[in-house]
Amino acid sequence: MLKEYDCWFQRRKVIPGFIVPQIVCAQKGAEVALQALKEYVKGINRLLEFTPVQKKEDFNLSAVFLGIYDKLEKAASFSCTRPAKEGFAIKVEENKIFIAGNDENGLLYGVFRFLLLLALGKLHTGFQLSESPVSPLRIINHWDNFDGTVERGYAGNSLFYKDGRFDFDDQRIEDYARLLSSTGINRISINNVNVRDKAKLLITQEYLRDAARLAAIFRRFGIKIFISINFGAPWSLGKLPTADPLDASVAKWWAQRAKLIYKFIPDLAGFLVKADSEGEPGPFQYNRTHCDGANMLAEAVKPFGGEILWRCFVYNCQQDWRDKSFDRARAAYDHFKPLDGKFSSNVILQIKFGPYDFQVREPVAPLFGALLKTRHIMELQITQEYTGHQIDLCYLPWIWQDIMSFDTAHGEKSRIMEMIKPYCEGFSNIEGFAAVVNTGLDKNWTGHTLAQANLYGYGRMAWNPCLTAKEIANEWSVLSFGKNQTSEKIEKILLDSYPAYEKYNAPFGVCFMVTPNSHYGPNIEGYEFSRWGTYHRADANAIGIDRTEKGTGYTQQYSDGNAKMFCDHASCPENLILFFHRLPYDYKMKNGQSLIQNIYDTHFEGCDEAAAMLEDWKSLKDHLENEVYESVLSRFERQNTNARDWRDQINTYFHRKTGIKDVRGRKIYD
Amino acid sequence: MLKEYDCWFQRRKVIPGFIVPQIVCAQKGAEVALQALKEYVKGINRLLEFTPVQKKEDFNLSAVFLGIYDKLEKAASFSCTRPAKEGFAIKVEENKIFIAGNDENGLLYGVFRFLLLLALGKLHTGFQLSESPVSPLRIINHWDNFDGTVERGYAGNSLFYKDGRFDFDDQRIEDYARLLSSTGINRISINNVNVRDKAKLLITQEYLRDAARLAAIFRRFGIKIFISINFGAPWSLGKLPTADPLDASVAKWWAQRAKLIYKFIPDLAGFLVKADSEGEPGPFQYNRTHCDGANMLAEAVKPFGGEILWRCFVYNCQQDWRDKSFDRARAAYDHFKPLDGKFSSNVILQIKFGPYDFQVREPVAPLFGALLKTRHIMELQITQEYTGHQIDLCYLPWIWQDIMSFDTAHGEKSRIMEMIKPYCEGFSNIEGFAAVVNTGLDKNWTGHTLAQANLYGYGRMAWNPCLTAKEIANEWSVLSFGKNQTSEKIEKILLDSYPAYEKYNAPFGVCFMVTPNSHYGPNIEGYEFSRWGTYHRADANAIGIDRTEKGTGYTQQYSDGNAKMFCDHASCPENLILFFHRLPYDYKMKNGQSLIQNIYDTHFEGCDEAAAMLEDWKSLKDHLENEVYESVLSRFERQNTNARDWRDQINTYFHRKTGIKDVRGRKIYD
Repeated sequence: MLKEYDCWFQRRKVIPGFIVPQIVCAQKGAEVALQALKEYVKGINRLLEFTPVQKKEDFNLSAVFLGIYDKLEKAASFSCTRPAKEGFAIKVEENKIFIAGNDENGLLYGVFRFLLLLALGKLHTGFQLSESPVSPLRIINHWDNFDGTVERGYAGNSLFYKDGRFDFDDQRIEDYARLLSSTGINRISINNVNVRDKAKLLITQEYLRDAARLAAIFRRFGIKIFISINFGAPWSLGKLPTADPLDASVAKWWAQRAKLIYKFIPDLAGFLVKADSEGEPGPFQYNRTHCDGANMLAEAVKPFGGEILWRCFVYNCQQDWRDKSFDRARAAYDHFKPLDGKFSSNVILQIKFGPYDFQVREPVAPLFGALLKTRHIMELQITQEYTGHQIDLCYLPWIWQDIMSFDTAHGEKSRIMEMIKPYCEGFSNIEGFAAVVNTGLDKNWTGHTLAQANLYGYGRMAWNPCLTAKEIANEWSVLSFGKNQTSEKIEKILLDSYPAYEKYNAPFGVCFMVTPNSHYGPNIEGYEFSRWGTYHRADANAIGIDRTEKGTGYTQQYSDGNAKMFCDHASCPENLILFFHRLPYDYKMKNGQSLIQNIYDTHFEGCDEAAAMLEDWKSLKDHLENEVYESVLSRFERQNTNARDWRDQINTYFHRKTGIKDVRGRKIYD
Repeated sequence: MLKEYDCWFQRRKVIPGFIVPQIVCAQKGAEVALQALKEYVKGINRLLEFTPVQKKEDFNLSAVFLGIYDKLEKAASFSCTRPAKEGFAIKVEENKIFIAGNDENGLLYGVFRFLLLLALGKLHTGFQLSESPVSPLRIINHWDNFDGTVERGYAGNSLFYKDGRFDFDDQRIEDYARLLSSTGINRISINNVNVRDKAKLLITQEYLRDAARLAAIFRRFGIKIFISINFGAPWSLGKLPTADPLDASVAKWWAQRAKLIYKFIPDLAGFLVKADSEGEPGPFQYNRTHCDGANMLAEAVKPFGGEILWRCFVYNCQQDWRDKSFDRARAAYDHFKPLDGKFSSNVILQIKFGPYDFQVREPVAPLFGALLKTRHIMELQITQEYTGHQIDLCYLPWIWQDIMSFDTAHGEKSRIMEMIKPYCEGFSNIEGFAAVVNTGLDKNWTGHTLAQANLYGYGRMAWNPCLTAKEIANEWSVLSFGKNQTSEKIEKILLDSYPAYEKYNAPFGVCFMVTPNSHYGPNIEGYEFSRWGTYHRADANAIGIDRTEKGTGYTQQYSDGNAKMFCDHASCPENLILFFHRLPYDYKMKNGQSLIQNIYDTHFEGCDEAAAMLEDWKSLKDHLENEVYESVLSRFERQNTNARDWRDQINTYFHRKTGIKDVRGRKIYD
């Protein structure tokens, strides 16, 4: 039976079809290598129910050898494809097993992978695998506040903070670090990008002492921490008259502050910064550019090897809906493309995957492929802000798979998954990913137990963007529930969940028909006249924004090929057609039906599919721990109410607006 | 120049055209009579700049005589129409002035009226006036929370509470009591009807000690206090297993509690109760009726002469918009009409004036005129919840005048103003009014300085419902600004403000096109799919709810005459036509224009009128204290933004929905 807390590390006896030697020989190493050995012993106990005997390295023994690849290769008769940075090789011989990391992180990842493959039943004599992460940066962002709340958190309060201070359980943080590290995460930002109230004190001595304790736990698992800082700190915290990045006293303040911070956390990854965004302070206040701001901070952390993650979520959030010339989707490109090449070498731009804000369906942002001389990563969201608050099930690797497959059409090998690489000047390489996490103090970490799959999936896909949503769903289901009919059904439920959610949500990429602020449930005109700049402008005849060259010109931010593809009704993907075009309700879609009929159809279908997931779940009642069954059941029931609200409000809204009936005569409320 | 804090008691020298004797002779009395003398002395100092000399009563003197009417009449050669309960007579003779109350409250009201008439320049030799309040109950409701916030408060924090406790400035409370008493208020409920958190402790010893201090100040001004109680207190506070009103232990608990409360406040007016409403506990939880609940409480306070104010704001707030058979407007009548005659003699129902909730334009609720055997009062709202948050100017006596003039058409003398009378079994008399107040810790009491006119106006109209909005605007303007061109302009601005506000708000009585929760600014579909039961169901062809006998049947709750009037398009008042009817946009209104054109026209006009008010205000710059000018100016500027938002969102919404153009070609955004 499932123990939710353990996630993909269930205690479940495995009968391997090969010999796992009782002896383990681990090379001496630093703390991550030590942790790798501990994890190996722990994992074998869990899966094979014996405690490995630790012996000094001796290649005459029948043993499992843990170590650094170069050393093992030299000493043993072992060889495999050499792993790259943070990579590992696993080789299962007749009576020897090698788990070799390119480095200590690689070794730890190798041990975790060995254990997961063992649990999945995928190992056998003769098995060998050499694998290295595709992305150098595999980051988790916490939007945790010091009062213990979590912005956009749906899994209980913060793992790190309470009542204005650090307040964490060391054991729980270790368990958390294990979960993250086992999927390949190597960076974590520990506080909300909106740095308010007590969080401003994080970079003071008293709080840094606790931050260092937290960092020490993550460090053992190969994870470095980022701190989110408030750009106005020299003014608000340091009492300087300004936070102007070109003011010498400000630069000096940050340099001294960095020195203090690095005294406590010598391997700090750096700072994460949300500046000039949604009310946060930034260089614009002083008529400076984002380069001025980021580079000044970069200079401060440079002596310590630190880096600046600078978010590109910068847009005018004081819009007037009357102004049709404005298009919020243009903002990131308009702000940052002109700055390409002007950032310091230790500044990394963090760009949301789409031009809006983590919508259920958005195009990939045009900055990807367009930046050639600036380090950058892609920002994703694991926490289900717009995707159902971990009440509704929404399996996110589907979204990420679509993103990875997107072809930016800038030159060759221009699909996102092909662009994930270490930075190289002159190329549009994306160095990796950051994602806002979905975890909290809930016993099962993620509120909805099945939302663990999104946490797992993010790590896996950040490591290897070529993995498919289906592969990951299969891995996660088997690891969590064992290889059986239950896990097969759950895999199916996961895979069904995103298409259903998309169908009952805002139609065809039009976005933001959601309850303001909370972002759960339908509110079709909720943002229609507000300051946030996300309008659909539905009238009696048509809906959507013309973003082509005849409209706001947003499409022209893409490569020529993509601009053409999106501009043309025929080639624009239909699931995004209302993002790019304003269309009359009688527009004929590829299935021969009108747009309005497609809106009706998808909403009836999405709601039916949510109902089917509920039934699928009910069929598992006898095969699941009661607590798990009930907690997920209650969520599916709430999801069904939500899906019905979406279906009826969307259908009624368009029916009222157009007077057009459903051709199949289903119930639309008037 | 205006001193905002002093409201209608400005220090401004008056040259009366008659002799005000230097001597004052006051009969001995209790504390209200003593306060009357103090107020007389204070007022004469303020207006005539001398201190009256107090002498023993001697009718040979040229003096001002203060006393009880019966005694004065007997002793002096003075005679006038005899005032009734709480009434007064004023008589200005050649060298004697009489101010005589039927009782001490009457005397105090007489003194205040004398001073106000003196300031207004309306007194002269030979002047005589005998006046008694039309309404026995003239109540102010505070929605103040113990944390210091005020629910629907727009004038700063609470005058009474802070940080979970009583926390008030005695001098400020005295000044507040003076303001209220001077307009005739004789009851005040001191805490929010939603009794939550620390407010539940108000009926415990520790808090009652402070409540008694507060009551003592109001007592001097003839004002008794009500306490809002939580119906669940026996359970939540008393730790009983139930709060069932028919449970003997519950009744006993309340009886003992009443005894304790009356020990601290022997003249407590009673309890105010919001039960079974918007989540508050009530008798429905125990399958009991509102009679069961109210009568049990009535029994508890009866030995002490206390009364129960029982609110009728009871409706299902978990509605489904899909269900068209439901009509929230029906709720109060459906709940309370069947209970007529079943309430104890010291229970008074408090009924909101309209069937919804303090909207800008609602019909008068059908319970008025229909209750013949139950004591009841009408609830109004001075605080501007739906009427502009004391940012927008909205002079509310216009609304109240419309209410007072409404003819319930139940028998003769059936206009509301004719029904305000002491209770008499078998008649539909309304015993008075309660109103949610608009005051707070802001220096000017009401946030918007001109919103003082609403506070003043409520008291005046509760005293005498036949007063017109215009009369009150004139009184208040002259009292505040002096008799000059400035007060004339301000009177005009006040009078212009409500028609403007109504025009740019939801059209023709359709209600609730307002931002959810905050209730400021437009949100046309904000409540359209929510649980609150306030739907307009606008589609491409029509808008509104059919509430006639062919629709929800709400009209049938009125007298036959009114049912007929509201049902018939021709006789239904046009400002309420969308409250009662569902009409196509091309419906022809009395001015010959279509409904949609009338919507456009009123919204362009309302916005223009708001702009004109701003200009009118600007013209007063040189005639006003700078601080007052600027604070009101900034509100008018915000009001103009709000009016523009209303105009454009309403017009755009209907234009998008219908495609119908403005016949005058004005700008409607698409």
